[in-house]
Order: sequence, then structure tokens, then C-alpha cells
Amino acid sequence: MAPLNAELLQVNLNPNPAAPDFDNLVFGQKFSPHMLIIDWNHKTGWGAPQIKPYGPLSLSPAAPALHYASGLFEGMKAYRSTDGSGKIRLFRADKNMERMNRSAARAGLPTFDGDEFVKLIKTLVRIDREHVPHGEGQTLYLRPTLIGTPDTLGMGVPTEAQLYCICSPVGNYYSSGTGSKPVSLLARTDVVRAWPGGTGCYKLAANYAGATRPAMDALLQGYHQVLWLFGPDRQLTEVGAMNLFVVFRDQAEDGDAARYEIATAALDDGTILPGVTRDSILSLLRAYKAGNVQIEGLPKPENLTISERKVTMDEIIEKAEVNQIAEVFGSGTAAVVCSVDKIGFEGVDIPIPIQADGMGTFMRTMLREVTGRQWGAIPCPEWSSVC
Amino acid sequence: MAPLNAELLQVNLNPNPAAPDFDNLVFGQKFSPHMLIIDWNHKTGWGAPQIKPYGPLSLSPAAPALHYASGLFEGMKAYRSTDGSGKIRLFRADKNMERMNRSAARAGLPTFDGDEFVKLIKTLVRIDREHVPHGEGQTLYLRPTLIGTPDTLGMGVPTEAQLYCICSPVGNYYSSGTGSKPVSLLARTDVVRAWPGGTGCYKLAANYAGATRPAMDALLQGYHQVLWLFGPDRQLTEVGAMNLFVVFRDQAEDGDAARYEIATAALDDGTILPGVTRDSILSLLRAYKAGNVQIEGLPKPENLTISERKVTMDEIIEKAEVNQIAEVFGSGTAAVVCSVDKIGFEGVDIPIPIQADGMGTFMRTMLREVTGRQWGAIPCPEWSSVC
Repeated sequence: MAPLNAELLQVNLNPNPAAPDFDNLVFGQKFSPHMLIIDWNHKTGWGAPQIKPYGPLSLSPAAPALHYASGLFEGMKAYRSTDGSGKIRLFRADKNMERMNRSAARAGLPTFDGDEFVKLIKTLVRIDREHVPHGEGQTLYLRPTLIGTPDTLGMGVPTEAQLYCICSPVGNYYSSGTGSKPVSLLARTDVVRAWPGGTGCYKLAANYAGATRPAMDALLQGYHQVLWLFGPDRQLTEVGAMNLFVVFRDQAEDGDAARYEIATAALDDGTILPGVTRDSILSLLRAYKAGNVQIEGLPKPENLTISERKVTMDEIIEKAEVNQIAEVFGSGTAAVVCSVDKIGFEGVDIPIPIQADGMGTFMRTMLREVTGRQWGAIPCPEWSSVC
Repeated sequence: MAPLNAELLQVNLNPNPAAPDFDNLVFGQKFSPHMLIIDWNHKTGWGAPQIKPYGPLSLSPAAPALHYASGLFEGMKAYRSTDGSGKIRLFRADKNMERMNRSAARAGLPTFDGDEFVKLIKTLVRIDREHVPHGEGQTLYLRPTLIGTPDTLGMGVPTEAQLYCICSPVGNYYSSGTGSKPVSLLARTDVVRAWPGGTGCYKLAANYAGATRPAMDALLQGYHQVLWLFGPDRQLTEVGAMNLFVVFRDQAEDGDAARYEIATAALDDGTILPGVTRDSILSLLRAYKAGNVQIEGLPKPENLTISERKVTMDEIIEKAEVNQIAEVFGSGTAAVVCSVDKIGFEGVDIPIPIQADGMGTFMRTMLREVTGRQWGAIPCPEWSSVC
């Protein structure tokens, strides 16, 4: 069984690559000229990696990827350094590889050496480097994907698979703008994204199938995203395809005397995706609280509590009534962070505070701190690496 | 928006069709020479149906079918009549079309005129009629499939889709034989197939992704299938990819004096797939109970109760101890019915009675009554139609 080996890479360059096109960047609609693909089968293991022109896959109409959702993916980005060096960076790619392998194991798909796959992705990005956009907040979005491909309808563990990566120059995930324009949420209990014993804590394709129609319904009702509630106590779990943060304060107004709690759902029951941006935000806040990093704009460390815990709609309603919700925001690779200005629940809209720039204090600060490390403006070698 | 129209069919015959091959039929591994495919897009609707040689799809590596499990399917069969007429039959295709359209609406994929699709499937079966096997219990398995196909990573409702059908000559779904060799079940509470508010009552690809690994684990522990339990009261929901029936009796032995209850999970909470075989079994039993159909081998109608209700592991354990479980079997299109001889739960194996032929009375009777109507031995024009 051959392991994944980046040294076996074969490159077939696109003879007619399209020129970089950064006009009207809508998420995931344009692709760079090349893709990376590696075949696997259960007898021989991983084949020679191929970089070749972006184009359609040739896939059996019986493939388990199509019938049994035998697939999973990651969201990553290549960032053009803001220091003028021309360097292209990845952010915490090791975390994506860890999660991708956990997903693969859960799905009955083959695992692989993440370091080797990152080497190959970096080569792909170097080949398509002119397609990494230059604009603020713009990136080359990377979509590592693993699918089960054998020509059989059998429901067993797939005997063949393809691991691939495609690249899409993107502006801001939300057409309303990354974080600068807040989103409204429709809180729903009638549809459920994930459950204990399911696959919600893995990044499987299957987790997204049930969300398409509820998201469309939310749009038709005038909301941007679904707020996924869970359980009889109506816990806030995720928003759209993002993790969720709620900032509480113990007074009705911001100020030096106020104490703040920033809370997000814990990962312990298997229903929450362990987001890389979620982890980055929690890590930065904890380092700040511990005095290991300076972050301007946050409350004093002694006035800040960082919680991974259950937050229920009852708590949201109760705290909103006394103006003790400071802000709410989502986090994810595509959007980084995304502020929330309204939660519709059982026919009532709960307003969430938003400042004049469309952000809240924590969201604005985290946007600066995370994107600074992603683009290289804030040196962070343990998280950021050059392609 | 053009509706699906069977009259627009274009046929491109396979110039080199393989000869029919019915040796060593393993489920879903061989395919007939032709496939049916119909493209849809959100601007023009359904395109001209195509019957063409079986072969790989050309699919965008960004297709939502691969990333967001935007796909669903049906399981149907073409049966070679046992009356020597050479007629090929479908069974309750209207039920599959109803369910497929419900699945499509839930997945945000396009719906279609099921009667038109059945006309096209019948044409496909007529073209590949030599590939409908002749052996007892053998069929041409039909796999209608609908996938989201646009070349975009956007998470919205797919703007393009493909509806297709492939055909696979099959023997018995389970390598241990349809019903003649019972299966053992590993009852699990740590993994959960479906949840209220999820998609478990629709036949979406997404429902199967989480089952692959638990099924493999069950095999490694010496069991054939997973028995999916749900909730704190450990309700029996489904087995593998089948519905589940439990037959209770009020005495420790079969006999004229015994009263029987046949129970299967109700469809009311959205976690149970509304199986066509499940419905056929319930319909036949209710017609028998009402005196509208004669079925040999069942208890007298007045001694028979037919229930759609919750059955818990506590009830199984309690009734097994006093020998009041008469039999347990699964039902599905692939297997028809499949008897169970053992349920492993929390480290203990609960034996389930099995008669000398590897069946139970209800399972054997239902196998005869359902397959009789499928193959045409028992006339049933409301359920069976000729291609």
C-alpha cells in the first residue's frame, strides 16, 4: 500500500490557461487553470499525484460519492502577503489536514499523510500564483476534497477514491461583504443540522445536504442565514455553515466597568464542527487573557471570560431584553467573521447591537487579528507558512 | 421551463453491448449496456432525455453533488415474469416517483413528472431486456438518481442537475442469500442514523454517509448489519438500509391460540424511511386482516394486530426472556425481506427465533406474497406494470 508521496508528482501544464480574472468575484464560481488530483485504490494505495488543467472529472454514475455521499472537503485559502514581498501564504494548513483525516476515517475513506498533501497544494498554488487576487480581503480559495469513486452500487467501504484540490479566486463570501454588512438569522427548531452520534463534527459532504432548502426558505422569509437550534432547550449551535460566538456583558452599556463573556458551543457532544477560525479566535483570546499576546480593543483581561458552553435561546431572549448582549458573530474560513444584527425566532425579531461600521468590538478586533496573521501583516510563523 | 417529456427521447445505442452476464452476481457490480440521462437547468428546465451507452459522467470537480451531498436516489427492480410470457415488470414505480420528488424538494433539487420518468425507465428496460436475469430471485436492479451538477462551490440551490437511471443485474443483495440465511444485528446507540428535523425520511445520499463506518465496525465484530437505535428509550428504527419488523406473540410458543402483533416504527417523526416494501407488507397485512385478501400461513385475522409504533430495546429484552418474540425481519427493495437471528446489544447476544429454513412464518409468507406480485405469479395490476 503506497503512501501519499509528493515526490511522485507529475505536472501537465494547461496549454491555454485563462488570464487571471478578478472581476465580480462571487464565491466559488471561477477556478484557476490547474487542479491537483491523486487516485487511491485499496490494493495499491496512493498513486502518483497529478497537477493538470482544471476540468471535469470522469466519474462512474454508480460512484458512492453520488449515491451514498461518500465525500468530504476542507476550506483553505492562499493569501497574497501585504508586505509587498509577493509571498503567498497558507494559514494553519496542518489543522485542515488533521480534520480532513478525521473526516476520512469517519466516512470509511482512506487517510493520508497531511504534510505530503500540503506540499502538493503549495506546488499547485505556486503554479497558479498569478490567480491569487490582490484586493483587500481577496484570496485564492482552496478546496481539498476526497470522494469515493468505485464503479459499484455496493454500500461497503469504497475500494477506490480520489483526493483532489481545486482553487477559486474569491472576494468576500457573503455578497453583503465580509463582516462589514451584518447578516440576519432565522432561528429554526424544525430542521436540525447535526445530532449526537451523527457526523456534524466532521466536515462530510453529508452535513450540507439538509441545509440547502432551509437556507433558501430563510432567504425567502427575508433572513440571510439559518441559526441552527438543537434540543428541547434550543441551544444555539451553528449559523449557516459557520461557528457562532455570542458576547454577553453584565451591564446594559459598554464601558471599562463592564465584564464580558464571549461564548461559543463546546465541541463535546459531536454536533459542532471544530472550525479552524473558531479555534484561532479562542486561541488568541486565551493568549490575550493569559497575558501572552497584546490585542488592542478588547476589554481588560480581568474583565473577560472565554467560554465553550451551551447558550440557549431563552438566554438570548432574556439577555437581549436587558441589553446584555454586546454582539453576535459567525466564524469560518470563507467569511473569517461575520456580524449578526437580528435573530428571528418564533415570529419575533430579536435585535442584536451593531456599531456604525456594521461590526461589534470583538468581531472587528478578531477580524484584524486573524486576517493580520493570515496575510502576514502580523508575524505568526506557527500559523502561517509560505508556499 | 420545459417539463420532463418522454417524447423527446433520443436514443444512442451502444455499438458494442456486452453480452448478458449473470455469473457471480454481486449487488451493484455489473451494469447493463445503456443508461438514461436527462439534464436540467434552472433557466430552461428539463432537456431532451438521452439513452446512451453506460459510461462515466463528466462532472465538475466543484459540483454540489460531491461537496454538499446534493443527491438522492431510488431503488427499483425489473422482474422477468415467471409466467413464461417474457414480460418484464416494474413494481409500484409510482411510489418510488412520489418519494423521489419529495426527496428532491427537500434537497433543493428540481422535481419532475414521475409518469414521464417511468415511461423512460420502461424504454430503457426494454432496450436492455436481455440483461434482466432469469434465475429465481434475480432481477435487473434499477437506480434512478438525481444530482446537483453546476460548476460552482456556492452553497445555494443548484442551478443545474442531472436525473439518470442505471441498471444492474443482481442476484441476492446479501451475499448470505435473500432471506434464506438470517442476518445478525449489532444494536448501536453511539451512532445515530437519523434525527427528527433531519433528512432520514427522505432517500437522500446524505443519509448513508454516516453508516459506512459503523457497518464496517459491525462486520469486524462478527455481525452482518447495524440495528440503529434512537433516543434515551433506545427505539428500534431501521436495520442497515432496511425498515424493521418485529413479531410479538402473547404465548411462549406458536399455535392457534396465540395472538400476534407485527410492529414497525411509525413514520410520524421524520426519522424512518417510508419504504415501498414496508408499505407493501403493511398493506397486504391490513387487507388480510380486513378480509379483502386471502393469505395462507398467517394467524387468523382476529389473532393478528398490525402496529406502527415505537418498539424499544427494553421491550425486546423483556419479551425475548419470556420467548414472546416470534421473529424479526428487515424489509427493503434490494433484499425484499431478510430474517434476523441475533441482536447484539451492550455485549449480550439476544437470540431471535428462526425456523429450519432460516425464516420465520411472517417473513416467509411476506416473501411469497410480495415477490409473487413483483414477478407476476400473483396478479396485481394496481402494483405491477409491464414495461
